[in-house]
Amino acid sequence: MRVIVDVMGGDNAPLETVKGAVLASKARSASYILVGDRAQIETIATAEGLDISRFDIVHASEVITMEDDPLSVVRAKKESSMSVGLRMLAEGKGDVFVSTGNTGALFTGATLIVRRVRGIQRAAIGSVLPAAEPCILLDTGANVTVTEEYLEQFAVMGSAYMHKVFGIESPTVGLLNNGTEDHKGTPLHIEANKRLKACESIRYVGNIEGNAVPFGACNVVVTDGFTGNVFVKTMEGVGKYIMKAVKGVFVQNGVSKLSALLVRKSLNGMKKTFDPSEYGGSPFLGISKPVVKAHGSSDAHAFQSAIRVAIDYAESGVIYDIAEEAERFAARKKAEHEASLAAEQKEADYAATT
Amino acid sequence: MRVIVDVMGGDNAPLETVKGAVLASKARSASYILVGDRAQIETIATAEGLDISRFDIVHASEVITMEDDPLSVVRAKKESSMSVGLRMLAEGKGDVFVSTGNTGALFTGATLIVRRVRGIQRAAIGSVLPAAEPCILLDTGANVTVTEEYLEQFAVMGSAYMHKVFGIESPTVGLLNNGTEDHKGTPLHIEANKRLKACESIRYVGNIEGNAVPFGACNVVVTDGFTGNVFVKTMEGVGKYIMKAVKGVFVQNGVSKLSALLVRKSLNGMKKTFDPSEYGGSPFLGISKPVVKAHGSSDAHAFQSAIRVAIDYAESGVIYDIAEEAERFAARKKAEHEASLAAEQKEADYAATT
Repeated sequence: MRVIVDVMGGDNAPLETVKGAVLASKARSASYILVGDRAQIETIATAEGLDISRFDIVHASEVITMEDDPLSVVRAKKESSMSVGLRMLAEGKGDVFVSTGNTGALFTGATLIVRRVRGIQRAAIGSVLPAAEPCILLDTGANVTVTEEYLEQFAVMGSAYMHKVFGIESPTVGLLNNGTEDHKGTPLHIEANKRLKACESIRYVGNIEGNAVPFGACNVVVTDGFTGNVFVKTMEGVGKYIMKAVKGVFVQNGVSKLSALLVRKSLNGMKKTFDPSEYGGSPFLGISKPVVKAHGSSDAHAFQSAIRVAIDYAESGVIYDIAEEAERFAARKKAEHEASLAAEQKEADYAATT
Repeated sequence: MRVIVDVMGGDNAPLETVKGAVLASKARSASYILVGDRAQIETIATAEGLDISRFDIVHASEVITMEDDPLSVVRAKKESSMSVGLRMLAEGKGDVFVSTGNTGALFTGATLIVRRVRGIQRAAIGSVLPAAEPCILLDTGANVTVTEEYLEQFAVMGSAYMHKVFGIESPTVGLLNNGTEDHKGTPLHIEANKRLKACESIRYVGNIEGNAVPFGACNVVVTDGFTGNVFVKTMEGVGKYIMKAVKGVFVQNGVSKLSALLVRKSLNGMKKTFDPSEYGGSPFLGISKPVVKAHGSSDAHAFQSAIRVAIDYAESGVIYDIAEEAERFAARKKAEHEASLAAEQKEADYAATT
């Protein structure tokens, strides 16, 4: 396993990313390739007393910032750590790529440099949610508008991920909607609900509402990237807000210092899990090789956790499953198309004879 | 102030709604008109020892259930408590209508029986959110698809509500989006953001993200009914899930019984406020007379709180402000239309002379 690590571009890069990579290398044996400014990496290692002797360092002279245009990854900043790392992944010089950098640029680069799985119409960004049962939501921001077919493919890809990475035999899938009944949602949701019901590759449980998700309503939640983004950010904001309010309750009620101390540690742990963006890393599903986004504000521990997600993703073989499903999808589509042509022909023949 | 109370139709109706009305009458002096099954209301009053002698009771022989089609309010069940009450409101036999019944039917009835304010293209359901600053989100479910103009009108209506009902001098308005930058969102959001920036009737602060809302990012959040519904349900679900987890932390850490007891009460209070649907009642904005929806599962206290919201709404005069704004909106639209005609004419004149 060769992990290509983009150490530049996040809020705390390269200090925390280099530290995170060192932490990860102690926890999981793999080859680590750090891509970034060589001088900065070496200075950090010396200053922090980090042993990076077993790491390969690939120098990159540029950095994509949060303000850069997503297309800079393939245009103005081809020598950025992100571009260099993605090209290495595409060329087989590593098995997985992980970055804290600009999400839009990373997604654009993954799509244009690494490319999608053949037959996948759009890749999606997955977020593993804090919930009573393992749960991934996709898309969380890559595609603000979608079609029924994209949603069907998201469902198939999310199922493959939860099966292979989380070991769930037959993951349940729900369509995020504003009610559970079949007539709920926009015309797109009504059509997507029909398609998902008819899709034999997944275990569809129907429309689900936002309040059911944290309680384990299903393992895969599919939605467009706009709604998905609002969902995970709302989850994050409400989580932070409530945890703050809970702390206030302690102070108000004069809870003993010892009790407060005991509880605070657990509460702080909880607080982190309610920020979906910090909960590990976000896999890009539908890209032909594994790419994982770590939160822009990752500290060393969060980045280590994203690297763990990346290795799990790469080792799982989920992308082979997605490729197989994409072929099945194409076959179904072809059959549908031929059936519709045949029906048209039949109608035309009938019209000609009458 | 004459409050028309639909005591039928909710999960706990008519027991909790009659009790809620009695509680409300003790807290706020007003005339209360209960609409529903007279025999059931009287039986409850006797069994519970409730004094309903000062209430008017208007008998209604039918009840709209949660399963009924929204249009039943004007078709199959014209003698339902909801239809009778809405007709009374429309005919001026009361000043405000409050109901725990079927949201779709109530909204349809409000629109078709009471009717919209002239010039308002679509009415919206508002939800006052638990947040660091007073905040209303609309639409939370009535219009799954919207236009830029609807969103502009939602912004104006929400501002009028926060000004008149919450006493906020100049309420801030945000457009719920998947990022703060102007290019974020679907084409609709990009257009709506432009329109809201140009609208002089409101204090627009720009695109806002879901995680900023609980922390008081603005007083009015505008969005389509699909996203708004997902938002409030996610808020509700995450709130409930976290509060459950917080309780677990107490048990795990062996917090003393006394501390736990002290804190539990506060936490239970908090839990309720994080269910936006229970947080008072939801005003329908854009309807020509005040209609308020109470949560379907309201107990007496929640229903009392919805009645309080209804009275505040009716006393505030916010609907006059909305009507004025709707006139201004129509004038702006007319001016825009004339300007575009004039520009076309100018171009045609120019083309004719060259």
